[in-house]
Amino acid sequence: MLTNIGSDRVRSVRALGRRAVREREALFLAEGQQAVREVVAHRSDSVKDLYVDPDAGTRHATMLEAARANGVSIRDVSPEVLAAMCDTKAPQGIVAVCRSIDVDLESVLDRHPKLLLILTNVRDPGNAGAVIRGADAAGADAVLVSDSSVDIYNPKVVRSTAGSLFHLPIVMGVPIPLMLDRVRGAGLALFAADGAGESPLADVDLSGPHAWVMGNEAWGFEPGVREACDSVVRVPIYGKAESLTLAVAATICLYASAALQRADRISG
Amino acid sequence: MLTNIGSDRVRSVRALGRRAVREREALFLAEGQQAVREVVAHRSDSVKDLYVDPDAGTRHATMLEAARANGVSIRDVSPEVLAAMCDTKAPQGIVAVCRSIDVDLESVLDRHPKLLLILTNVRDPGNAGAVIRGADAAGADAVLVSDSSVDIYNPKVVRSTAGSLFHLPIVMGVPIPLMLDRVRGAGLALFAADGAGESPLADVDLSGPHAWVMGNEAWGFEPGVREACDSVVRVPIYGKAESLTLAVAATICLYASAALQRADRISG
Repeated sequence: MLTNIGSDRVRSVRALGRRAVREREALFLAEGQQAVREVVAHRSDSVKDLYVDPDAGTRHATMLEAARANGVSIRDVSPEVLAAMCDTKAPQGIVAVCRSIDVDLESVLDRHPKLLLILTNVRDPGNAGAVIRGADAAGADAVLVSDSSVDIYNPKVVRSTAGSLFHLPIVMGVPIPLMLDRVRGAGLALFAADGAGESPLADVDLSGPHAWVMGNEAWGFEPGVREACDSVVRVPIYGKAESLTLAVAATICLYASAALQRADRISG
Repeated sequence: MLTNIGSDRVRSVRALGRRAVREREALFLAEGQQAVREVVAHRSDSVKDLYVDPDAGTRHATMLEAARANGVSIRDVSPEVLAAMCDTKAPQGIVAVCRSIDVDLESVLDRHPKLLLILTNVRDPGNAGAVIRGADAAGADAVLVSDSSVDIYNPKVVRSTAGSLFHLPIVMGVPIPLMLDRVRGAGLALFAADGAGESPLADVDLSGPHAWVMGNEAWGFEPGVREACDSVVRVPIYGKAESLTLAVAATICLYASAALQRADRISG
Protein backbone atom coordinates (compact mmCIF):
# COMPACT_ATOMS: atom_id res chain seq x y z
CA MET A 1 0.00 0.00 0.00
CA LEU A 2 1.29 3.49 -0.88
CA THR A 3 1.51 5.54 2.32
CA ASN A 4 4.07 8.26 1.56
CA ILE A 5 2.18 11.45 0.73
CA GLY A 6 5.45 13.12 -0.32
CA SER A 7 6.33 10.57 -3.01
CA ASP A 8 6.91 11.51 -6.65
CA ARG A 9 3.92 9.45 -7.68
CA VAL A 10 1.56 11.30 -5.34
CA ARG A 11 2.92 14.64 -6.51
CA SER A 12 2.58 13.71 -10.18
CA VAL A 13 -1.07 12.71 -9.67
CA ARG A 14 -1.84 15.84 -7.66
CA ALA A 15 -0.23 17.97 -10.38
CA LEU A 16 -3.04 16.91 -12.72
CA GLY A 17 -5.18 19.48 -10.93
CA ARG A 18 -3.33 22.02 -13.12
CA ARG A 19 -4.32 22.55 -16.75
CA ALA A 20 -0.76 22.94 -18.05
CA VAL A 21 0.23 19.58 -16.56
CA ARG A 22 -2.89 17.88 -17.89
CA GLU A 23 -2.14 19.15 -21.38
CA ARG A 24 1.55 18.19 -21.26
CA GLU A 25 0.83 14.67 -19.98
CA ALA A 26 -2.45 14.13 -21.87
CA LEU A 27 -3.88 12.82 -18.60
CA PHE A 28 -6.68 13.89 -16.24
CA LEU A 29 -8.35 12.80 -12.99
CA ALA A 30 -11.71 11.10 -12.48
CA GLU A 31 -12.39 11.54 -8.76
CA GLY A 32 -14.99 9.80 -6.65
CA GLN A 33 -17.36 6.90 -6.92
CA GLN A 34 -19.61 8.09 -9.75
CA ALA A 35 -16.85 9.27 -12.10
CA VAL A 36 -14.73 6.16 -11.54
CA ARG A 37 -17.72 3.83 -11.94
CA GLU A 38 -18.63 5.49 -15.25
CA VAL A 39 -15.11 5.58 -16.70
CA VAL A 40 -14.61 1.91 -15.79
CA ALA A 41 -17.98 0.97 -17.30
CA HIS A 42 -17.68 3.00 -20.51
CA ARG A 43 -14.03 3.89 -21.15
CA SER A 44 -11.87 1.44 -19.20
CA ASP A 45 -9.38 1.64 -22.11
CA SER A 46 -8.63 5.21 -20.98
CA VAL A 47 -7.79 4.35 -17.34
CA LYS A 48 -4.05 4.47 -16.74
CA ASP A 49 -4.09 3.87 -12.97
CA LEU A 50 -6.80 3.51 -10.38
CA TYR A 51 -6.01 4.40 -6.75
CA VAL A 52 -8.23 3.22 -3.94
CA ASP A 53 -8.11 3.40 -0.14
CA PRO A 54 -9.07 0.38 2.02
CA ASP A 55 -12.64 1.51 2.82
CA ALA A 56 -13.46 2.25 -0.82
CA GLY A 57 -11.76 -0.99 -1.83
CA THR A 58 -14.27 -2.90 0.29
CA ARG A 59 -17.26 -0.83 -0.85
CA HIS A 60 -16.46 -1.13 -4.55
CA ALA A 61 -15.09 -4.69 -4.64
CA THR A 62 -17.33 -5.76 -7.53
CA MET A 63 -16.48 -2.74 -9.68
CA LEU A 64 -12.77 -3.17 -8.95
CA GLU A 65 -12.96 -6.82 -9.96
CA ALA A 66 -14.55 -5.83 -13.27
CA ALA A 67 -11.91 -3.13 -13.80
CA ARG A 68 -9.09 -5.62 -13.13
CA ALA A 69 -10.65 -8.02 -15.63
CA ASN A 70 -10.51 -5.20 -18.19
CA GLY A 71 -6.78 -4.78 -17.59
CA VAL A 72 -6.94 -1.72 -15.32
CA SER A 73 -4.00 -1.40 -12.92
CA ILE A 74 -5.31 -0.88 -9.36
CA ARG A 75 -3.09 0.47 -6.55
CA ASP A 76 -3.96 0.42 -2.86
CA VAL A 77 -3.23 3.70 -1.08
CA SER A 78 -3.76 5.07 2.40
CA PRO A 79 -6.62 7.56 2.91
CA GLU A 80 -3.98 10.28 3.40
CA VAL A 81 -2.34 9.51 0.05
CA LEU A 82 -5.73 9.46 -1.67
CA ALA A 83 -6.62 12.86 -0.19
CA ALA A 84 -3.22 14.26 -1.22
CA MET A 85 -3.79 13.12 -4.82
CA CYS A 86 -7.19 14.74 -5.28
CA ASP A 87 -8.61 18.17 -6.03
CA THR A 88 -11.86 17.67 -4.14
CA LYS A 89 -12.13 17.86 -0.35
CA ALA A 90 -14.20 14.63 -0.25
CA PRO A 91 -12.76 12.30 -2.91
CA GLN A 92 -14.70 9.26 -1.63
CA GLY A 93 -11.60 7.10 -1.41
CA ILE A 94 -11.14 6.49 -5.13
CA VAL A 95 -9.51 8.26 -8.07
CA ALA A 96 -8.57 7.24 -11.61
CA VAL A 97 -5.78 8.76 -13.68
CA CYS A 98 -7.19 8.72 -17.21
CA ARG A 99 -5.72 9.29 -20.65
CA SER A 100 -7.35 12.14 -22.59
CA ILE A 101 -10.46 10.94 -24.39
CA ASP A 102 -11.32 13.89 -26.63
CA VAL A 103 -11.59 13.11 -30.33
CA ASP A 104 -11.01 14.95 -33.62
CA LEU A 105 -13.78 17.11 -35.01
CA GLU A 106 -13.48 15.26 -38.32
CA SER A 107 -14.10 11.87 -36.69
CA VAL A 108 -17.38 13.23 -35.28
CA LEU A 109 -18.48 14.77 -38.57
CA ASP A 110 -17.58 11.63 -40.55
CA ARG A 111 -20.31 9.78 -38.65
CA HIS A 112 -23.08 12.06 -40.01
CA PRO A 113 -24.31 13.44 -36.66
CA LYS A 114 -27.90 14.64 -36.39
CA LEU A 115 -27.61 16.62 -33.15
CA LEU A 116 -24.55 18.39 -31.73
CA LEU A 117 -23.92 20.78 -28.86
CA ILE A 118 -21.26 23.48 -29.33
CA LEU A 119 -19.96 25.46 -26.32
CA THR A 120 -18.05 28.70 -26.78
CA ASN A 121 -16.68 30.84 -23.96
CA VAL A 122 -18.45 28.76 -21.31
CA ARG A 123 -16.24 29.48 -18.32
CA ASP A 124 -17.90 28.08 -15.20
CA PRO A 125 -16.89 24.43 -14.55
CA GLY A 126 -20.22 23.53 -12.96
CA ASN A 127 -22.17 24.97 -15.89
CA ALA A 128 -20.01 23.18 -18.45
CA GLY A 129 -20.47 19.88 -16.65
CA ALA A 130 -24.25 20.33 -16.29
CA VAL A 131 -24.59 21.16 -19.98
CA ILE A 132 -22.63 18.04 -21.01
CA ARG A 133 -24.90 15.99 -18.73
CA GLY A 134 -27.96 17.50 -20.42
CA ALA A 135 -26.53 16.78 -23.89
CA ASP A 136 -25.96 13.16 -22.88
CA ALA A 137 -29.50 12.81 -21.52
CA ALA A 138 -30.96 14.30 -24.72
CA GLY A 139 -28.96 11.80 -26.78
CA ALA A 140 -26.77 14.36 -28.59
CA ASP A 141 -24.19 12.75 -30.87
CA ALA A 142 -21.26 14.77 -29.47
CA VAL A 143 -20.27 17.94 -27.59
CA LEU A 144 -17.82 20.33 -29.25
CA VAL A 145 -16.01 22.70 -26.90
CA SER A 146 -14.24 25.70 -28.42
CA ASP A 147 -10.73 26.66 -27.34
CA SER A 148 -12.12 29.69 -25.46
CA SER A 149 -14.07 27.56 -22.97
CA VAL A 150 -13.15 26.03 -19.62
CA ASP A 151 -10.94 22.90 -19.79
CA ILE A 152 -13.28 19.91 -19.83
CA TYR A 153 -10.66 17.90 -17.89
CA ASN A 154 -10.81 20.36 -14.97
CA PRO A 155 -11.72 18.11 -12.00
CA LYS A 156 -14.78 20.27 -11.24
CA VAL A 157 -16.09 19.81 -14.79
CA VAL A 158 -15.43 16.06 -14.67
CA ARG A 159 -17.40 15.77 -11.41
CA SER A 160 -20.30 17.90 -12.55
CA THR A 161 -20.83 15.89 -15.74
CA ALA A 162 -21.93 13.06 -13.39
CA GLY A 163 -20.25 10.51 -15.69
CA SER A 164 -21.55 11.95 -18.97
CA LEU A 165 -18.00 12.91 -19.99
CA PHE A 166 -17.48 9.19 -20.63
CA HIS A 167 -20.77 8.64 -22.48
CA LEU A 168 -20.45 10.66 -25.67
CA PRO A 169 -17.63 11.98 -27.89
CA ILE A 170 -16.08 15.30 -26.85
CA VAL A 171 -14.11 17.58 -29.18
CA MET A 172 -11.82 20.21 -27.64
CA GLY A 173 -9.51 23.03 -28.51
CA VAL A 174 -10.87 24.10 -31.91
CA PRO A 175 -11.31 27.87 -32.47
CA ILE A 176 -15.00 28.74 -32.80
CA PRO A 177 -14.90 30.22 -36.35
CA LEU A 178 -13.25 27.07 -37.70
CA MET A 179 -15.59 24.84 -35.70
CA LEU A 180 -18.74 26.55 -37.01
CA ASP A 181 -17.36 26.47 -40.54
CA ARG A 182 -16.64 22.74 -40.46
CA VAL A 183 -19.96 21.82 -38.84
CA ARG A 184 -21.86 23.83 -41.44
CA GLY A 185 -19.72 22.26 -44.16
CA ALA A 186 -20.84 18.83 -42.92
CA GLY A 187 -24.44 19.80 -43.66
CA LEU A 188 -25.69 20.76 -40.19
CA ALA A 189 -27.72 23.90 -39.53
CA LEU A 190 -26.39 26.14 -36.75
CA PHE A 191 -28.75 27.50 -34.08
CA ALA A 192 -27.39 29.96 -31.53
CA ALA A 193 -29.37 29.92 -28.26
CA ASP A 194 -29.83 33.35 -26.70
CA GLY A 195 -32.48 34.85 -24.40
CA ALA A 196 -32.72 37.81 -26.79
CA GLY A 197 -32.90 35.68 -29.96
CA GLU A 198 -35.40 36.67 -32.64
CA SER A 199 -36.85 33.18 -33.25
CA PRO A 200 -38.90 31.46 -30.51
CA LEU A 201 -37.91 27.81 -30.09
CA ALA A 202 -41.30 26.55 -31.26
CA ASP A 203 -40.89 28.31 -34.64
CA VAL A 204 -37.57 26.70 -35.59
CA ASP A 205 -37.47 23.70 -37.93
CA LEU A 206 -35.53 21.15 -35.88
CA SER A 207 -36.16 18.14 -38.11
CA GLY A 208 -32.85 18.20 -40.01
CA PRO A 209 -29.30 17.69 -38.68
CA HIS A 210 -28.25 20.68 -36.59
CA ALA A 211 -26.03 21.99 -33.82
CA TRP A 212 -27.02 24.15 -30.84
CA VAL A 213 -24.45 26.82 -30.02
CA MET A 214 -24.31 28.04 -26.39
CA GLY A 215 -22.22 31.04 -25.32
CA ASN A 216 -20.92 32.60 -22.14
CA GLU A 217 -23.13 32.46 -19.03
CA ALA A 218 -23.11 36.24 -18.56
CA TRP A 219 -22.42 37.96 -21.86
CA GLY A 220 -23.38 35.44 -24.53
CA PHE A 221 -21.49 35.27 -27.83
CA GLU A 222 -18.26 36.79 -29.08
CA PRO A 223 -18.52 38.82 -32.32
CA GLY A 224 -19.23 36.75 -35.42
CA VAL A 225 -20.98 33.80 -33.81
CA ARG A 226 -24.58 35.02 -34.27
CA GLU A 227 -23.82 36.02 -37.83
CA ALA A 228 -22.36 32.57 -38.57
CA CYS A 229 -25.56 30.83 -37.40
CA ASP A 230 -28.77 30.21 -39.33
CA SER A 231 -30.95 31.54 -36.50
CA VAL A 232 -30.58 33.05 -33.06
CA VAL A 233 -33.22 31.20 -31.04
CA ARG A 234 -34.78 32.04 -27.68
CA VAL A 235 -36.47 29.80 -25.17
CA PRO A 236 -39.46 32.04 -24.38
CA ILE A 237 -39.73 33.43 -20.85
CA TYR A 238 -43.42 33.32 -19.88
CA GLY A 239 -43.01 34.77 -16.38
CA LYS A 240 -40.86 37.54 -14.91
CA ALA A 241 -37.51 35.68 -14.74
CA GLU A 242 -34.68 37.45 -16.52
CA SER A 243 -33.21 34.27 -17.95
CA LEU A 244 -32.76 30.52 -17.57
CA THR A 245 -29.51 28.94 -16.43
CA LEU A 246 -27.22 27.79 -19.23
CA ALA A 247 -27.80 24.11 -18.45
CA VAL A 248 -31.59 24.49 -18.35
CA ALA A 249 -31.72 26.50 -21.59
CA ALA A 250 -29.36 24.11 -23.41
CA THR A 251 -31.21 21.00 -22.25
CA ILE A 252 -34.62 22.42 -23.22
CA CYS A 253 -33.28 23.16 -26.73
CA LEU A 254 -31.66 19.73 -27.08
CA TYR A 255 -34.79 17.94 -25.87
CA ALA A 256 -36.93 19.86 -28.35
CA SER A 257 -34.59 18.63 -31.09
CA ALA A 258 -34.44 15.07 -29.78
CA ALA A 259 -38.21 14.74 -29.41
CA LEU A 260 -38.77 15.88 -32.99
CA GLN A 261 -35.91 13.97 -34.61
CA ARG A 262 -36.85 10.75 -32.84
CA ALA A 263 -40.55 11.11 -33.69
CA ASP A 264 -39.52 11.63 -37.35
CA ARG A 265 -37.37 8.50 -37.34
CA ILE A 266 -40.21 6.42 -35.95
CA SER A 267 -42.89 7.80 -38.27
CA GLY A 268 -40.58 8.06 -41.32
CA MET B 1 -23.47 55.75 8.88
CA LEU B 2 -23.56 52.59 10.98
CA THR B 3 -19.99 51.48 11.72
CA ASN B 4 -20.23 49.36 14.87
CA ILE B 5 -20.17 45.71 13.83
CA GLY B 6 -20.96 44.67 17.40
CA SER B 7 -24.24 46.63 17.63
CA ASP B 8 -27.58 44.99 18.44
CA ARG B 9 -28.89 45.96 15.03
CA VAL B 10 -26.05 44.22 13.19
CA ARG B 11 -26.48 41.14 15.35
CA SER B 12 -30.23 41.02 14.81
CA VAL B 13 -29.77 41.21 11.03
CA ARG B 14 -27.03 38.56 11.06
CA ALA B 15 -29.25 36.29 13.16
CA LEU B 16 -31.62 36.04 10.18
CA GLY B 17 -29.14 33.56 8.73
CA ARG B 18 -30.77 31.08 11.17
CA ARG B 19 -34.10 29.46 10.35
CA ALA B 20 -35.49 29.63 13.90
CA VAL B 21 -34.89 33.39 14.03
CA ARG B 22 -36.41 33.92 10.58
CA GLU B 23 -39.53 32.04 11.62
CA ARG B 24 -39.85 33.87 14.96
CA GLU B 25 -39.39 37.31 13.40
CA ALA B 26 -41.17 36.55 10.09
CA LEU B 27 -38.23 38.25 8.37
CA PHE B 28 -35.53 37.15 5.92
CA LEU B 29 -32.54 38.56 4.02
CA ALA B 30 -32.26 39.49 0.35
CA GLU B 31 -28.50 39.82 -0.21
CA GLY B 32 -26.72 41.34 -3.17
CA GLN B 33 -27.54 43.43 -6.18
CA GLN B 34 -29.88 41.09 -8.05
CA ALA B 35 -32.02 40.04 -5.08
CA VAL B 36 -32.35 43.62 -3.80
CA ARG B 37 -33.14 44.99 -7.25
CA GLU B 38 -35.88 42.40 -7.73
CA VAL B 39 -37.46 42.81 -4.30
CA VAL B 40 -37.50 46.60 -4.72
CA ALA B 41 -38.99 46.30 -8.22
CA HIS B 42 -41.64 43.68 -7.41
CA ARG B 43 -42.26 43.57 -3.65
CA SER B 44 -41.07 46.86 -2.19
CA ASP B 45 -43.97 46.55 0.29
CA SER B 46 -42.08 43.67 1.90
CA VAL B 47 -38.81 45.57 2.49
CA LYS B 48 -38.41 46.51 6.14
CA ASP B 49 -34.89 47.98 5.93
CA LEU B 50 -32.32 48.30 3.22
CA TYR B 51 -28.62 48.55 4.17
CA VAL B 52 -26.05 49.81 1.73
CA ASP B 53 -22.33 50.57 1.87
CA PRO B 54 -20.88 53.70 0.19
CA ASP B 55 -19.65 51.97 -2.99
CA ALA B 56 -22.93 50.20 -3.60
CA GLY B 57 -24.79 53.41 -2.76
CA THR B 58 -23.05 55.12 -5.67
CA ARG B 59 -23.48 52.18 -8.05
CA HIS B 60 -27.20 51.76 -7.32
CA ALA B 61 -28.21 55.42 -6.88
CA THR B 62 -31.15 55.17 -9.31
CA MET B 63 -32.55 52.03 -7.73
CA LEU B 64 -32.17 53.48 -4.23
CA GLU B 65 -34.00 56.62 -5.33
CA ALA B 66 -36.88 54.48 -6.60
CA ALA B 67 -36.90 52.47 -3.38
CA ARG B 68 -37.00 55.65 -1.28
CA ALA B 69 -39.93 56.93 -3.37
CA ASN B 70 -41.74 53.67 -2.51
CA GLY B 71 -41.28 54.33 1.19
CA VAL B 72 -38.33 51.98 1.80
CA SER B 73 -36.09 52.98 4.71
CA ILE B 74 -32.45 53.03 3.57
CA ARG B 75 -29.54 52.98 6.03
CA ASP B 76 -25.92 53.73 5.17
CA VAL B 77 -23.45 51.26 6.68
CA SER B 78 -19.70 50.68 6.49
CA PRO B 79 -18.47 47.77 4.32
CA GLU B 80 -17.49 45.98 7.56
CA VAL B 81 -21.02 46.29 8.98
CA LEU B 82 -22.50 45.09 5.68
CA ALA B 83 -20.22 42.02 5.66
CA ALA B 84 -21.08 41.29 9.30
CA MET B 85 -24.80 41.36 8.49
CA CYS B 86 -24.66 38.91 5.59
CA ASP B 87 -24.49 35.17 5.07
CA THR B 88 -22.58 35.33 1.80
CA LYS B 89 -18.85 36.03 1.57
CA ALA B 90 -19.38 38.58 -1.22
CA PRO B 91 -22.61 40.44 -0.41
CA GLN B 92 -22.00 43.14 -3.06
CA GLY B 93 -22.49 45.97 -0.59
CA ILE B 94 -26.25 45.75 -0.28
CA VAL B 95 -28.79 43.76 1.75
CA ALA B 96 -32.51 44.08 2.41
CA VAL B 97 -34.32 42.82 5.51
CA CYS B 98 -37.69 41.65 4.14
CA ARG B 99 -40.97 40.62 5.71
CA SER B 100 -42.07 37.07 4.84
CA ILE B 101 -43.94 37.00 1.53
CA ASP B 102 -45.36 33.48 1.46
CA VAL B 103 -49.11 33.24 1.00
CA ASP B 104 -51.89 30.83 2.02
CA LEU B 105 -52.55 27.81 -0.13
CA GLU B 106 -56.21 28.79 -0.30
CA SER B 107 -55.41 32.21 -1.73
CA VAL B 108 -53.52 30.50 -4.58
CA LEU B 109 -56.28 27.98 -5.26
CA ASP B 110 -59.00 30.66 -5.18
CA ARG B 111 -57.43 32.20 -8.26
CA HIS B 112 -58.02 29.06 -10.38
CA PRO B 113 -54.40 28.30 -11.23
CA LYS B 114 -53.61 26.38 -14.42
CA LEU B 115 -50.02 25.40 -13.64
CA LEU B 116 -48.41 24.82 -10.23
CA LEU B 117 -45.10 23.43 -9.04
CA ILE B 118 -45.06 21.42 -5.80
CA LEU B 119 -41.76 20.63 -4.04
CA THR B 120 -41.53 17.94 -1.40
CA ASN B 121 -38.36 16.93 0.45
CA VAL B 122 -36.20 19.12 -1.78
CA ARG B 123 -33.25 19.72 0.53
CA ASP B 124 -30.46 21.41 -1.42
CA PRO B 125 -30.77 25.21 -1.34
CA GLY B 126 -29.24 25.67 -4.80
CA ASN B 127 -31.61 23.13 -6.34
CA ALA B 128 -34.66 24.69 -4.67
CA GLY B 129 -33.67 28.12 -5.94
CA ALA B 130 -32.99 26.89 -9.47
CA VAL B 131 -36.35 25.10 -9.60
CA ILE B 132 -38.21 28.25 -8.47
CA ARG B 133 -36.36 30.21 -11.17
CA GLY B 134 -37.45 27.63 -13.76
CA ALA B 135 -41.08 27.79 -12.56
CA ASP B 136 -41.00 31.56 -12.90
CA ALA B 137 -39.54 31.38 -16.42
CA ALA B 138 -42.20 28.85 -17.46
CA GLY B 139 -44.93 31.16 -16.15
CA ALA B 140 -46.19 28.86 -13.40
CA ASP B 141 -48.96 30.41 -11.30
CA ALA B 142 -47.30 29.57 -7.95
CA VAL B 143 -44.77 27.30 -6.21
CA LEU B 144 -45.97 25.22 -3.24
CA VAL B 145 -43.23 24.02 -0.89
CA SER B 146 -44.09 21.25 1.56
CA ASP B 147 -43.00 21.44 5.19
CA SER B 148 -40.37 18.73 4.59
CA SER B 149 -38.36 20.90 2.17
CA VAL B 150 -35.53 23.38 2.68
CA ASP B 151 -36.58 26.79 4.04
CA ILE B 152 -37.19 29.02 1.04
CA TYR B 153 -35.95 32.03 3.07
CA ASN B 154 -32.53 30.40 3.52
CA PRO B 155 -30.12 33.02 2.08
CA LYS B 156 -28.69 30.45 -0.36
CA VAL B 157 -32.16 29.70 -1.71
CA VAL B 158 -33.00 33.40 -2.01
CA ARG B 159 -29.79 34.02 -3.99
CA SER B 160 -30.19 31.03 -6.27
CA THR B 161 -33.74 32.01 -7.26
CA ALA B 162 -32.08 34.98 -9.04
CA GLY B 163 -35.02 37.21 -8.04
CA SER B 164 -37.76 34.73 -8.94
CA LEU B 165 -38.74 34.43 -5.27
CA PHE B 166 -40.28 37.90 -5.68
CA HIS B 167 -42.01 37.16 -9.00
CA LEU B 168 -44.64 34.56 -8.19
CA PRO B 169 -46.66 33.44 -5.14
CA ILE B 170 -44.94 30.95 -2.81
CA VAL B 171 -46.78 28.72 -0.33
CA MET B 172 -44.78 27.18 2.54
CA GLY B 173 -45.08 24.86 5.49
CA VAL B 174 -48.03 22.69 4.42
CA PRO B 175 -47.64 18.91 4.94
CA ILE B 176 -47.53 17.13 1.57
CA PRO B 177 -50.63 14.89 2.04
CA LEU B 178 -52.79 17.92 2.87
CA MET B 179 -51.25 19.92 0.04
CA LEU B 180 -51.92 17.25 -2.60
CA ASP B 181 -55.44 16.80 -1.28
CA ARG B 182 -56.28 20.50 -1.49
CA VAL B 183 -54.75 20.94 -4.94
CA ARG B 184 -56.68 17.97 -6.30
CA GLY B 185 -59.82 19.28 -4.61
CA ALA B 186 -59.38 22.53 -6.54
CA GLY B 187 -59.64 20.57 -9.79
CA LEU B 188 -55.99 20.22 -10.76
CA ALA B 189 -54.45 16.96 -11.95
CA LEU B 190 -51.29 15.86 -10.10
CA PHE B 191 -48.24 14.68 -12.05
CA ALA B 192 -45.25 13.32 -10.13
CA ALA B 193 -41.98 13.69 -12.06
CA ASP B 194 -39.61 10.74 -11.65
CA GLY B 195 -36.85 9.29 -13.83
CA ALA B 196 -38.45 5.86 -13.35
CA GLY B 197 -42.02 7.02 -14.04
CA GLU B 198 -44.22 4.84 -16.23
CA SER B 199 -45.56 7.62 -18.51
CA PRO B 200 -43.19 9.42 -20.90
CA LEU B 201 -43.72 13.18 -20.84
CA ALA B 202 -44.94 13.25 -24.45
CA ASP B 203 -47.83 10.87 -23.62
CA VAL B 204 -49.34 12.94 -20.80
CA ASP B 205 -52.33 15.21 -21.44
CA LEU B 206 -51.09 18.57 -20.19
CA SER B 207 -53.92 20.69 -21.54
CA GLY B 208 -55.96 20.95 -18.33
CA PRO B 209 -55.03 22.60 -15.03
CA HIS B 210 -52.34 20.57 -13.26
CA ALA B 211 -49.48 20.57 -10.78
CA TRP B 212 -46.02 19.04 -11.21
CA VAL B 213 -44.73 17.35 -8.05
CA MET B 214 -40.94 17.14 -7.62
CA GLY B 215 -39.29 15.09 -4.85
CA ASN B 216 -35.92 14.71 -3.21
CA GLU B 217 -32.81 15.08 -5.40
CA ALA B 218 -31.44 11.66 -4.45
CA TRP B 219 -34.27 9.41 -3.35
CA GLY B 220 -37.42 10.85 -4.91
CA PHE B 221 -40.75 10.67 -3.10
CA GLU B 222 -41.80 9.70 0.41
CA PRO B 223 -44.44 6.93 0.66
CA GLY B 224 -47.90 7.93 -0.53
CA VAL B 225 -46.93 10.69 -2.98
CA ARG B 226 -46.85 8.59 -6.16
CA GLU B 227 -50.13 6.93 -5.18
CA ALA B 228 -51.76 10.33 -4.62
CA CYS B 229 -50.85 11.50 -8.13
CA ASP B 230 -52.67 10.84 -11.40
CA SER B 231 -49.48 9.76 -13.19
CA VAL B 232 -45.80 9.30 -12.46
CA VAL B 233 -44.12 10.89 -15.46
CA ARG B 234 -40.56 10.55 -16.77
CA VAL B 235 -38.56 12.86 -18.95
CA PRO B 236 -37.06 10.25 -21.29
CA ILE B 237 -33.29 9.74 -21.19
CA TYR B 238 -32.15 9.21 -24.79
CA GLY B 239 -28.43 8.83 -24.03
CA LYS B 240 -26.48 7.10 -21.25
CA ALA B 241 -26.96 9.70 -18.48
CA GLU B 242 -28.43 8.28 -15.30
CA SER B 243 -30.67 11.25 -14.66
CA LEU B 244 -31.26 14.96 -15.18
CA THR B 245 -30.74 17.52 -12.44
CA LEU B 246 -33.86 18.44 -10.50
CA ALA B 247 -33.95 21.95 -11.97
CA VAL B 248 -33.53 20.71 -15.55
CA ALA B 249 -36.19 17.99 -15.18
CA ALA B 250 -38.67 20.35 -13.49
CA THR B 251 -38.17 23.11 -16.04
CA ILE B 252 -38.56 20.72 -19.00
CA CYS B 253 -41.87 19.48 -17.52
CA LEU B 254 -43.13 23.00 -16.78
CA TYR B 255 -42.20 24.22 -20.26
CA ALA B 256 -44.00 21.29 -21.86
CA SER B 257 -47.10 22.34 -19.89
CA ALA B 258 -46.70 26.03 -20.64
CA ALA B 259 -46.18 25.54 -24.38
CA LEU B 260 -49.34 23.45 -24.64
CA GLN B 261 -51.55 25.52 -22.33
CA ARG B 262 -50.55 28.76 -24.03
CA ALA B 263 -51.07 27.32 -27.53
CA ASP B 264 -54.53 26.18 -26.40
CA ARG B 265 -55.43 29.62 -25.10
CA ILE B 266 -54.41 31.24 -28.40
CA SER B 267 -56.16 28.70 -30.63
CA GLY B 268 -59.17 28.26 -28.31
